[in-house]
Amino acid sequence: MGARALVQWEQNRKNAPNSLQVDVYAGGVAPRTGLEEVTFYQVPYSPSTQGVDESTDIIARMPELEVLQLVSAGYEQILPLLPDGVTLCNGRGLHDASTAEHVLGLVLAAQRDLPRWAIDQSERRWAAVPQRSLADSRVLIVGHGSIGRAVEQRLLPFETTVVRLAGRARPDEDVHGADALHSLLPEADIVVLITPLTERTRGLFGAPEFSLLRDDALVVNVGRGAVLDTDALLAEGGRIRAALDVTDPEPLPVEHPLWQAPGVYITPHVAGGSAAFYPRARAFMDAQLARWATGEPLANVVRPGR
Amino acid sequence: MGARALVQWEQNRKNAPNSLQVDVYAGGVAPRTGLEEVTFYQVPYSPSTQGVDESTDIIARMPELEVLQLVSAGYEQILPLLPDGVTLCNGRGLHDASTAEHVLGLVLAAQRDLPRWAIDQSERRWAAVPQRSLADSRVLIVGHGSIGRAVEQRLLPFETTVVRLAGRARPDEDVHGADALHSLLPEADIVVLITPLTERTRGLFGAPEFSLLRDDALVVNVGRGAVLDTDALLAEGGRIRAALDVTDPEPLPVEHPLWQAPGVYITPHVAGGSAAFYPRARAFMDAQLARWATGEPLANVVRPGR
Repeated sequence: MGARALVQWEQNRKNAPNSLQVDVYAGGVAPRTGLEEVTFYQVPYSPSTQGVDESTDIIARMPELEVLQLVSAGYEQILPLLPDGVTLCNGRGLHDASTAEHVLGLVLAAQRDLPRWAIDQSERRWAAVPQRSLADSRVLIVGHGSIGRAVEQRLLPFETTVVRLAGRARPDEDVHGADALHSLLPEADIVVLITPLTERTRGLFGAPEFSLLRDDALVVNVGRGAVLDTDALLAEGGRIRAALDVTDPEPLPVEHPLWQAPGVYITPHVAGGSAAFYPRARAFMDAQLARWATGEPLANVVRPGR
Repeated sequence: MGARALVQWEQNRKNAPNSLQVDVYAGGVAPRTGLEEVTFYQVPYSPSTQGVDESTDIIARMPELEVLQLVSAGYEQILPLLPDGVTLCNGRGLHDASTAEHVLGLVLAAQRDLPRWAIDQSERRWAAVPQRSLADSRVLIVGHGSIGRAVEQRLLPFETTVVRLAGRARPDEDVHGADALHSLLPEADIVVLITPLTERTRGLFGAPEFSLLRDDALVVNVGRGAVLDTDALLAEGGRIRAALDVTDPEPLPVEHPLWQAPGVYITPHVAGGSAAFYPRARAFMDAQLARWATGEPLANVVRPGR
């Protein structure tokens, strides 16, 4: 059968069914031999690599490739490199715990002044000031998929009210559709943006949306930078607060005014890639290779092959 | 009947039963008249006031006092001022939501490098580095009362394992006793200290306890500063991380080495006093005044009167 898999983690090589020949390639300099026999390739994940490098260049050297496996959720960047007839699978769900955790970190940082205390500590200053809370807040989650659900589960014990919105309404799950956004904003204390970047979500949150928010509301963005209109946020001049793990532009240039905009807290696109990701990704890859070896349908297929 | 209450919040005056005469004193300069008729006194709460000031001095000018009500959990500071025969009530539970929220903020700050991002932002630096996670952590809660339970509820959706310890074991609730501390430390990733300061808890966490923790473990203290041995923490030299809302000494003097100790994150005793406290305290006071007016047993009695 000649099924040969190239994967990132030693655990997956060890746990793979005997019928598979599995080699490990953790990224960096490509293997010099054997690429022409690879039928299943998991592109190595690196939190610092965005997009294309040697690990993706080598796809063109795999004439027998049947499955291209990503462990990131996003896959737009790989589509130009996907050979005809090859099945593409992504890492949907593997970053949920990490991302949801970071959302709560951003929300608590903003509500409980954690950045202020970090700066005060660096200047050896002990100076308590009154603080907001997360308790009693109404949180609108924009983009209620698997990460949105993970965020909601973590928010509810904080004595919050969670309101759900997705591209399409799902009344049986209490999920509002996109057309309800403007009617929900005036009541929201906190808005969490967790949407992929599409033509429908680009600039989704701009001047009209900011203007509907009450003073001192908080907007959190862990989706994609361009979902939020940076200039519109800056124009609020601190009336609305923001906690952003993604920005537009990204990375944020050193001279950009967003760095020191009042009420804005920035983290450098680190939501999804914390240590929580790795055990989940390795466990997923064990199961995926077992499916591949036995001919079961693969999980997370985003583009079927032949 | 002449029952006259002096309370902090206008809401409580408005909602009080008609049979009570209620006046508002929010702190600061004491009322010039009427103190000699006060039978129920709620000492005004101020997040910045620690201990004794004019609002507590005036207790000595209330010869008819029957109930002294605090809305803080701690009450050691008031005992020397408590007249014989006066019932003392505290604010147990009113700070739970606020404190538990801050514990999660401290834990996420430490695990997800939030202080680093705050400093990086102030220096306009976009530089992601690999991060720990909270997910998959084993968290030992030392002091499993009402705040400990509130912390546990907020921790569990983060895919953590929570281990409970209190002064006395409660096997039916899976709560270990204090004598189990040393056996539980080697397995803990995170230890949360939430204990009042007593003769038994002073210095509870010192060199022997630190030495039992694995490298890179995190110790969070939101109880009282002196529960943790500051010198023992400093001696770890960054092997153990700490997130501290209370310190010993407190406030931390500007020249103290703890400010810049590696892996230590400090907030200035702000866990309990966020905005979450106020609606809970006002609702409690409404109910307490109703109990007082009708002769029902008061809640949160910590020292019965005559």
